[in-house]
This record gives sequence, C-alpha cells and structure tokens, in this order.
Amino acid sequence: MPIEAAEWQDACRLGPRPGFTPQISVLVGMMHYARLTTREAVEGLSVQELDALPPGFSNSIGMLLAHMAATDRLYQAASFEGRSCFEADDYAPYVGAMTFGWKGEPVRGRTLDDLLAELDATRAETLRQLAEHDDDWLTTLLTAPGFDDMNQHWAWFHVMEDELSHRGQIRILRKALALQTPPVS
Amino acid sequence: MPIEAAEWQDACRLGPRPGFTPQISVLVGMMHYARLTTREAVEGLSVQELDALPPGFSNSIGMLLAHMAATDRLYQAASFEGRSCFEADDYAPYVGAMTFGWKGEPVRGRTLDDLLAELDATRAETLRQLAEHDDDWLTTLLTAPGFDDMNQHWAWFHVMEDELSHRGQIRILRKALALQTPPVS
Repeated sequence: MPIEAAEWQDACRLGPRPGFTPQISVLVGMMHYARLTTREAVEGLSVQELDALPPGFSNSIGMLLAHMAATDRLYQAASFEGRSCFEADDYAPYVGAMTFGWKGEPVRGRTLDDLLAELDATRAETLRQLAEHDDDWLTTLLTAPGFDDMNQHWAWFHVMEDELSHRGQIRILRKALALQTPPVS
Repeated sequence: MPIEAAEWQDACRLGPRPGFTPQISVLVGMMHYARLTTREAVEGLSVQELDALPPGFSNSIGMLLAHMAATDRLYQAASFEGRSCFEADDYAPYVGAMTFGWKGEPVRGRTLDDLLAELDATRAETLRQLAEHDDDWLTTLLTAPGFDDMNQHWAWFHVMEDELSHRGQIRILRKALALQTPPVS
C-alpha cells in the first residue's frame, strides 16, 4: 500500500514521540523514516523480483529484507538481553538471512507480505523494549560478548544505518531489474 | 589511509561531543561514523575504478562521492541560510554532481584525494555551523522554499541517511568491479 503524504511529512520532523525519552524518540523517528523508505523501495515486488539476481549483484532484494529483520533480532538479544545469540538455537532460523546464505540457507521464495510482516513484528518488539529504557541507558556499553565495544545508542543507530545501506542497494537492484525486463508496450 | 582501530571504537559510542549541544552531538557522531564507513568503502580506488560503470549500474563511485558533497552544500544553504540554492550561481558547479549528470556534467576523471578533500572541506563547514546552533533549533522547520516541510533535525539526518544509502551502493559497485577484473595472479 502506498505511503500517504501526511505520513511522509510527519516522518520529516524528528523530535519527541509519546512513550519514549527525548534521545530515544529521535532514534525511533529515524528508524521509522528509514523503514518508510524501505517499504517504498520494495512496493509491489513479486516473489520472482524479490528473488532475482541481476549480473553483478550477489544478494537479492528478498535476501536484503530478511537480513534487515535478522539484524534487528540479533541486536535485540545483544542490547536488551546482553547475549550474543548468533550461535543460539533461537537464532538458528535467522542465520541464513543474517549471513546472506554464507551460513544456513539463503532466503528464497518468500512473498513481500511475508517479509514485511516479519520486519513489522520484529520492529514492534524493538520499539516495545526501547520504550522501557531511557536516555541514560543509551550511553551505556553493551555487555554481550563481541558487542561490548559499542554503546546502546550506537547499536540501534547501526541497525538503522545498515538498513539504509541495504535500502540504497535495493534501489539500484530494482533499477537493474527494470533494465533487464522492459515493460510490455 | 586506513582508519585506525581506536577511531572505529570511538565512533561506536554515540554521546556528548565537545562544542556541540546534546542532540547535535549525537547527530554529528552519526555523521562522523557514516563518513568513516564511506572512506573505508572507497579506500585505494583509482580514477579508472572511480569512473567505472559495470553493467546494471548507472552511477559511478566517483559520481556518488561527489553527490554526497553536493548534498551537504545544498542543505547548508537550505538549513543555515534559508535559501534553496539549486538554481543559484554559487551552486552551479555542483548541479552535475547533485543530479548525477541529469543536469550539468556528470562527474568524471576526479581522483580519490580530490573527492575526499571536497567531502572534508564541505563537512568542516557543516560542523562549524552546527556548533553555532542548539537543540531547540533542531526542532524548528526550515524556511527555504521546497524544504519547509522538514525540521532541522531531519534535514541533517537526511544528509547522513542519503550518504549511508549511497555507501551501500558503493559497496556493491566495488564488488561488481572486482568480479569484472579478477586480480592478476
């Protein structure tokens, strides 16, 4: 479904959000804007388009979307639970998505609705947890092994900046796909 | 020059920075981290690599780097001076970079040092100006025509998120280039 003009306008004004402390509000606003642009970038894609790999590209749009949700989950464990879940049983279903198929199975055959629903569900949990923390917590270092050099503010910024980076890739992947299959006249 | 481990570690802890108010500090920290990753993504590229366009890609890495600096300049005028400079004489040298050659000349033949020096100089001016503003200002709407729906916080977030998006593209462009020209054994 296209994103409404009012939703864009609202997203272009970062500031306090109900239920969040001031710095977390801005972070959540940035994450929200990033997600709107991801949704816009993938709107209307078929399973075939989500799985396509034009020459020169090694990850499909579907793989990139699943990777975004897997990243959110990885950082939920590291940030909120102080654990590195990469090798944990509960994370096993996401390792293929996280590693783009270098470990586990690469993502393939999933519908856009399915991929977006997973992104929404994962993000809802992130937001629920962020609402329970405050700006002082943002400045604390993570305790999970392998994540203990970063603070909480950077950790969630990173989840967002990784999404933005892959959204940029999705935009050119989609352009490359359009070049391969000109619309029927 | 490779980025030192200590510089990465410092960049992974967002928080107060000397000379900036609290929210501007975090924004500047994010912009700084984004720039480190851009520098890392382009390290050591030749003019030929900066100008290369593998099949399926329409903007070269050099074009993307010049676009980042042009975006910073466009938002300096909009944010700090309240003017839309796109058609102004002082912005004419950057229109080709900003529009990826749709208007003006596409960027070509520039060295990495030259492109990075422009990014540094432009960003230094942005930081100088941000240091003269405060967190209340961040929440105000821009007044420049065409930019007046966004607030200052979003404007500078957007400059950063656009860089992150293009950095993601640079990463896959560089991978695609490596596939085209296998290293000599």
